Amino acid sequence: MPQAAPSARAFEGVLSPNLTPYGPDLSPDPKAYVTHAKWLLANGVDALAPFGTTSEGNSLSVDEKLMLLDALLEAGVPGAKMMPGTGTCALPDSVRLTKASVEAGCGGVLLLPPFYYKGVSEDGVFAAISETIQRVGDARLRVYLYHIPPQAQIGFSIDLIDRLLKAYPGVVVGLKDSSGDWANMSSLMERFPGFDVFPGSELFLLDGLRAGAPGTITASSNVNARAIRAVVDAHLSGGDADAAQAEITKTRKALQTLPMIPALKAIAAQLHGDAGWRRVRPPLLALPDAQSAAAREIAAGVLLPA
Amino acid sequence: MPQAAPSARAFEGVLSPNLTPYGPDLSPDPKAYVTHAKWLLANGVDALAPFGTTSEGNSLSVDEKLMLLDALLEAGVPGAKMMPGTGTCALPDSVRLTKASVEAGCGGVLLLPPFYYKGVSEDGVFAAISETIQRVGDARLRVYLYHIPPQAQIGFSIDLIDRLLKAYPGVVVGLKDSSGDWANMSSLMERFPGFDVFPGSELFLLDGLRAGAPGTITASSNVNARAIRAVVDAHLSGGDADAAQAEITKTRKALQTLPMIPALKAIAAQLHGDAGWRRVRPPLLALPDAQSAAAREIAAGVLLPA
Repeated sequence: MPQAAPSARAFEGVLSPNLTPYGPDLSPDPKAYVTHAKWLLANGVDALAPFGTTSEGNSLSVDEKLMLLDALLEAGVPGAKMMPGTGTCALPDSVRLTKASVEAGCGGVLLLPPFYYKGVSEDGVFAAISETIQRVGDARLRVYLYHIPPQAQIGFSIDLIDRLLKAYPGVVVGLKDSSGDWANMSSLMERFPGFDVFPGSELFLLDGLRAGAPGTITASSNVNARAIRAVVDAHLSGGDADAAQAEITKTRKALQTLPMIPALKAIAAQLHGDAGWRRVRPPLLALPDAQSAAAREIAAGVLLPA
Repeated sequence: MPQAAPSARAFEGVLSPNLTPYGPDLSPDPKAYVTHAKWLLANGVDALAPFGTTSEGNSLSVDEKLMLLDALLEAGVPGAKMMPGTGTCALPDSVRLTKASVEAGCGGVLLLPPFYYKGVSEDGVFAAISETIQRVGDARLRVYLYHIPPQAQIGFSIDLIDRLLKAYPGVVVGLKDSSGDWANMSSLMERFPGFDVFPGSELFLLDGLRAGAPGTITASSNVNARAIRAVVDAHLSGGDADAAQAEITKTRKALQTLPMIPALKAIAAQLHGDAGWRRVRPPLLALPDAQSAAAREIAAGVLLPA
């Protein structure tokens, strides 16, 4: 198979905001966490994006996130294959998580803006990102901005990205766009060549690749990474990428008829043969049995055995 | 002056989400924090609501909040006069803060729902509050729900409050309503007699008192508590409460022409003779000089000397 041209990109292909399993008392289960993460990396996922929205990252304490990051490292997952979510509402928490990620050798971090106050100024969001970068103060830091207005409400406009790129060249290197708005993604790709814009859903993967995106960071990679990776491979090798995209679009749209995170966990429960995987932390709720069955049916056609 | 009838209410009158001052490195300054808190309690504030929205509570780490709570206790502020904000996005953080507040003897806690995920179900928000209460597992716990849709987006509907009151009678005892919607506040007061609904702004204080509210929890009490308390006193004593309300409405509306938290901090800087008070954590921004002067002018008519 033809290989992609050599690239300076730290991350390419399929990145997975890997799911976080909980024990009966709702504390994170590091053993099951590592098992799933390693299964992902062996089945189509190029790198992990721990503590993303799909990982329930904001439902975890800072200490819990640091414990899970350590568990991945101890299990031999290389830092270069990780882009942890490190943005929180509180500056010291974001700095602590980002610093720990850089010291762990992570290839980058996915940085949410502080998301409690709404209607804040762009100067204020700029200051939040800027203070975080300066306090971490490490030349190895690579920041991917996390643009997810449906949850965070606070996002990154083109003007704000432009300011950040000028202030921190070589540090602010990319963005995950979970706006669901292709017009926004394509504007960013056109406006900032060399800035790595990852669509936040594989629905936009092939369009993204053709417009210069390095890949996608997507929830459903937790259960369908092999087929998602096949789109990247077909695109690189001149295969039938459109047919491959049509397949993953079908699966994604089926998943989207269910609450996404609980549905992925219901599928993970089947994959790993452990009903405990269905647990979520509130305000999310585990899927009722009927919906869990529907989720497993969607996955039946695509899921590799664990 | 006539006294209010004896009451079983833990909190009445004017509650202040007391401001959080920062040193030059943006870490909280416990000495200045305690000075302001004690000034408030000596100048019209009946109780503190530390770590509220105005206190930049969500911009602080859990450890920082626990440190500031300790500083208040060590300075002799009685727990009974405190209703700390303890709701966060992450269950273990909310439990830790709530448990510490109960153990410190706090008269209650002001509980935000988890606010990262949007569009969550009422069952999910119920589960979040319920898990927090059960994990704290302390008969002394008194919960005031924090309804602030403009920031948290996730709020408490009448149906949800009804469920919580039935599930946790004597534990869920009140609510701060920062919706800015009098129709919502008055519906709650009418529907749940004995449930302590605090308007989240003194604009609704007199209407609230007349409808049975115990008082108000309001940002501007940081600089105008004496006049706000005067409305409560006039209401209780049969004085000219409408005239007193007209005064505080005028001041509040003037303050609302500026970004509220930075404006209050600019006024606190003058009050305490310390320009460092103007600092805020991002995504908030300190007021520019011209706006700071406007803020001080608004306060000039109402502020007591420190």
